[in-house]
Amino acid sequence: MPPLEAYKRQLPYTYALGLYPALQALEQAPHLVSRVLVHSKLSGEGADALYAACAQHKIRTEQAERLLKKLSGKDNCFAAAVCNKQQHDLDPSGNHLVLVHPMDAGNLGTILRSALGFSFLDITLITPCADAFDPQVIRASMGAIFSLRLSEFDSFEAYQNQAGPRKLYPFMLSDDALPLSKAVQHKKSPHSLIFGNEGSGLPAEYATWGQSIKIEQSDAIDSLNLAVSAAIGMYAFSSL
Amino acid sequence: MPPLEAYKRQLPYTYALGLYPALQALEQAPHLVSRVLVHSKLSGEGADALYAACAQHKIRTEQAERLLKKLSGKDNCFAAAVCNKQQHDLDPSGNHLVLVHPMDAGNLGTILRSALGFSFLDITLITPCADAFDPQVIRASMGAIFSLRLSEFDSFEAYQNQAGPRKLYPFMLSDDALPLSKAVQHKKSPHSLIFGNEGSGLPAEYATWGQSIKIEQSDAIDSLNLAVSAAIGMYAFSSL
Repeated sequence: MPPLEAYKRQLPYTYALGLYPALQALEQAPHLVSRVLVHSKLSGEGADALYAACAQHKIRTEQAERLLKKLSGKDNCFAAAVCNKQQHDLDPSGNHLVLVHPMDAGNLGTILRSALGFSFLDITLITPCADAFDPQVIRASMGAIFSLRLSEFDSFEAYQNQAGPRKLYPFMLSDDALPLSKAVQHKKSPHSLIFGNEGSGLPAEYATWGQSIKIEQSDAIDSLNLAVSAAIGMYAFSSL
Repeated sequence: MPPLEAYKRQLPYTYALGLYPALQALEQAPHLVSRVLVHSKLSGEGADALYAACAQHKIRTEQAERLLKKLSGKDNCFAAAVCNKQQHDLDPSGNHLVLVHPMDAGNLGTILRSALGFSFLDITLITPCADAFDPQVIRASMGAIFSLRLSEFDSFEAYQNQAGPRKLYPFMLSDDALPLSKAVQHKKSPHSLIFGNEGSGLPAEYATWGQSIKIEQSDAIDSLNLAVSAAIGMYAFSSL
């Protein structure tokens, strides 16, 4: 086996860095974990749970203090799960969350956590975008990434070709977008909630591809944070 | 005037660090801006707007390259507004957002941005908590902090003594909490939406002080991110 490298996008594996992220990986997706790195100072209940999970799933643990420090940039990262990356096929009968060019890793992780919370299990990213397998995303997702079906497409058209017939709901702040509280009263399934980039939002043409929706908000702000907008959209579509 | 110091909580002033945060401070709260620091490399439309705003409000600009670098830790921070801190009295007739021991500066800034977006203008923090005037909070708030009425209390009881009679809605994941979508159908005003700490949530006793509410979510996650929860609560209470 070649030596483990510091994380970069091209690698076929990633790291759930830290005791809790590693535990979450072992709990949610043990079939993706190839081995677990541990620090000699790892101890306590969490450590017991980690060793028990590795034993149960026959996953090798190895002491790797220097590597943990190199990977995390910290002295207090006591465990990491080495996880194979996995792309998924879309479920054409399910509701999807589509993120067009999301660029902020922290936002993306938070969105994945919300998506699992509101049972949007199919997540599509339109590239270029932040790397969903970046350890920072995995951490911010609180392990949610291991329970979701992630797919990437290089254009929205390529996504549509695989997504199957569905209602498209692009979220944008244009004047003719329908207020969210109205839109959910007439929602159709299966559907895709579509959100644009943090700074620029969705290009205007998305409004012609579906029913555009705006989250009612005061003119006192330019826009809501992307992770906040996506969570409100998924909450409103899932709670009625 | 004593020399400006690197930011710390005890100072009576803070910094809107960066061209856009500085512009936002000048636009939203020029009466709080005592002076503006600029870098010799500052140029372009934003720079013109900054100088125009300073001229309009008779605010002094001064070149301070080394100080900008020291304050921001970066070489590309080209402007900063020095802003006096201000605490506000509560509006007893308004709806309030109350955050009990929020500890994450990024979360807090994002929450302030959402609060302005949903017209929750009175924000109360129960200490200990993150410093709302930390430059990182100001930045994440996208300037929203300058349009809100911020107050701090060292206990929830102290807050209640000044808040006036109102309906209290603590957000917690207990079994007997009312689902948010139901709760908003019978909402009473004025009200306070109350959220706990990122890790531990609200202590159980808050349930006895008002109508506890839970955001409907799957058991697949432990909880939503605090900034996400607060935004969903404010959205649901403001959009009906």
